[in-house]
Amino acid sequence: MANQIVKPSTLPGFIEWLPADQIAFNKMMDTIRKNYEKYGFIPVDTPVIEKSEVLLAKGGGETEKQIYRFTKGDSDLSLRFDLTVPLARFVAQHMNELNFPFRRYQIGKVYRGERNQKGRFREFYQCDIDIIGNGKLSIINDAEIPSIIYSTFTDLGFDSFTIHINNRKVLNGFFDAAGVENKMETLRIIDKLDKIGIEAVKNELKELGLSDGAIERIEQFINISGSSDEVLEGLKNLNIQNEEFVLGLQELSKVVYYIRQFGVPDKNFMIDLKIARGLDYYTGTVYETILNDYPGIGSVCSGGRYDNLAEYYTAQKLPGVGISIGLSRLFYQLKEAGFFKESTSSTLTKVLVVPMDENVSYSIKVSNELKKAGIITEVYFEEGKFAKKLNYANKLGIPYVIIIGEDEIASNVLTLKNMSTGEQLKLTVEEIINKIG
Amino acid sequence: MANQIVKPSTLPGFIEWLPADQIAFNKMMDTIRKNYEKYGFIPVDTPVIEKSEVLLAKGGGETEKQIYRFTKGDSDLSLRFDLTVPLARFVAQHMNELNFPFRRYQIGKVYRGERNQKGRFREFYQCDIDIIGNGKLSIINDAEIPSIIYSTFTDLGFDSFTIHINNRKVLNGFFDAAGVENKMETLRIIDKLDKIGIEAVKNELKELGLSDGAIERIEQFINISGSSDEVLEGLKNLNIQNEEFVLGLQELSKVVYYIRQFGVPDKNFMIDLKIARGLDYYTGTVYETILNDYPGIGSVCSGGRYDNLAEYYTAQKLPGVGISIGLSRLFYQLKEAGFFKESTSSTLTKVLVVPMDENVSYSIKVSNELKKAGIITEVYFEEGKFAKKLNYANKLGIPYVIIIGEDEIASNVLTLKNMSTGEQLKLTVEEIINKIG
Repeated sequence: MANQIVKPSTLPGFIEWLPADQIAFNKMMDTIRKNYEKYGFIPVDTPVIEKSEVLLAKGGGETEKQIYRFTKGDSDLSLRFDLTVPLARFVAQHMNELNFPFRRYQIGKVYRGERNQKGRFREFYQCDIDIIGNGKLSIINDAEIPSIIYSTFTDLGFDSFTIHINNRKVLNGFFDAAGVENKMETLRIIDKLDKIGIEAVKNELKELGLSDGAIERIEQFINISGSSDEVLEGLKNLNIQNEEFVLGLQELSKVVYYIRQFGVPDKNFMIDLKIARGLDYYTGTVYETILNDYPGIGSVCSGGRYDNLAEYYTAQKLPGVGISIGLSRLFYQLKEAGFFKESTSSTLTKVLVVPMDENVSYSIKVSNELKKAGIITEVYFEEGKFAKKLNYANKLGIPYVIIIGEDEIASNVLTLKNMSTGEQLKLTVEEIINKIG
Repeated sequence: MANQIVKPSTLPGFIEWLPADQIAFNKMMDTIRKNYEKYGFIPVDTPVIEKSEVLLAKGGGETEKQIYRFTKGDSDLSLRFDLTVPLARFVAQHMNELNFPFRRYQIGKVYRGERNQKGRFREFYQCDIDIIGNGKLSIINDAEIPSIIYSTFTDLGFDSFTIHINNRKVLNGFFDAAGVENKMETLRIIDKLDKIGIEAVKNELKELGLSDGAIERIEQFINISGSSDEVLEGLKNLNIQNEEFVLGLQELSKVVYYIRQFGVPDKNFMIDLKIARGLDYYTGTVYETILNDYPGIGSVCSGGRYDNLAEYYTAQKLPGVGISIGLSRLFYQLKEAGFFKESTSSTLTKVLVVPMDENVSYSIKVSNELKKAGIITEVYFEEGKFAKKLNYANKLGIPYVIIIGEDEIASNVLTLKNMSTGEQLKLTVEEIINKIG
């Protein structure tokens, strides 16, 4: 009885990769994980589904509209939309079983029912680290974070990238000193500087209701540029006595001092007084990371310092600092930009053993020895012409084929074919292992 | 303004592990992944959410009631309840871009709204491999699968486990020859043999309506025991001419022959004529895996051969063979059984560098060098007494602490403390790297 055929398809905004891409994606994810672990971060894996009342404790905002929320039986459930809220819940729930500072990493899928558009996904991977203090947390942690970004993006194969660093206390203190009330909107306008130029920015600030004096001071502020040391000097020269500004400048100076101790080259970080990362969460250091060869992607790794991670779940004050890499979007954008030129293989297999006739036992024995030596090996078991078997290796991008016929079995000398050069060598199993292992 | 505090908690049936357990869990998952990759399986990562009409194309049964199904906008969505249906959809959808036999692995979370009970989870990891042929697939693949089970469970640290193997054609053919109609129920009764004994089994079969002759033949069938070769001999001696039985016996004989070629020791596999793995899916070889020191867990790795993977999505015939490890349940049961005796560490960090005073730059320098040598290292940046700093290492289970005070900075000779023995050595950074790297 024939079944009714349902057209196989996935939901819009839900990505899945074909093998070559999935292998490249996993390689990036493994590199990120390895770096997070190298710096002593501990894995956490919270459920994808949480109680709505817990996940949405903060409530409101754009986020709530995007939540995948539903009921099952009596339960009101939501899919996590980031890894930070689950972290807050996790730390508050298990506080007595954790050691502080608690350094955790989590790599997992999150869900947002965003409007469907190119390069935006409704299911995507985030790769997060956070360092959570119990009551307080040293500012030196804020300087270690950029060293992890540096190590990670270097290992991912990037050379030219810049970690932009700012401090929200510097911004807040400066705006207070300048008499700016609508800080959020002011920042949003300043952020457009590179796009629309200084005159347009000044016009918009005027429309917002800022005084000529405030606008003049803002112009002075955003004109501070140069090396990190020059920017710190420029900020000092503003002679602002506002307590928050002074504290922020101290923090920023310490962060710059210690970043260098952690070995991040000056070419890979800068103070950028224009970044703020949204106003309601971060309270000190903030980070954005720009790949200089792919500036259109925007920030590929962002985060910052916050005063209180879990205020909706505990009265205990839990300051922290962290970053997130939106891996699915980053991978997609890099792929679109042609970053993965060398990824031509659709398999991890290094050797395909091809038996010339039905006697496959010898081929299995050879594959056992190669696998024991750590070489990923398959045997082609299916019937078919020799060309078909070679074609399997070719299409997948398997680099080597070992051909085994009667002569090879009799002599224990095998034919190793390099699939990219076509070169064929007569070698023993041991010689093959030494050559390609 | 104080927030309303929401009690932090997770949903019943949704597990999350504390660090020591999560580290042990990830180690198991990494071992499984490494083994799957060693055998040339390609990673696939399908979305957790699929269109309900696609995911539930087969429809009916216990499964549908357990589905997490909901709507968002106009879309009817379901969370995947296994990794096999998404594989079928994936292969049918991307058929022209894949190479066959297609060897894929997928490790990911699946969702089932089961009745909440100990050791049963509503969100859990499955670790699957399948080999999919286009039109046909050699029986030798059925023999390779147990070698992957063998390699994986050996690497997971088990010595005494048995892969139980049967063939559904042997069962079907035998039942047809014996005139048994209700095969499903008959199998279910036979499966209780170890629990209730042969007489009770025979009584139940009689109640089911089987003839005395049929019951006698079934008793003869399930009494066939001994080594794999003896069981094959016993089956042959039944002298059953039924075509399906003869074909199944041929397949089973080949599988036993090739399993040995793949290097699986005889002590780690056996023919078990009592296993069947549910009647509506598998069509040939079936597997279950029993940890002999933990028989109560039941099968920890099961699967088999099927004729047609994706009949609901394509008219193309796609036979396959695969297995699945239900990792969350396995981990939980092993933990309950006390398997993880040595897992006392709540961190991956190997060295904690402890500065004795506020001068932490030298400590950072030391940690940079250790990390460069591949040693996972943290610096304790927080203020506090020395005992508090050591306590952080103690509680997390960090094996080594390097203590850095004025003397150490002046002499470049550091104090390395072994936290389990209490031993303290005076060493240079290079000597420390050589010792513990």
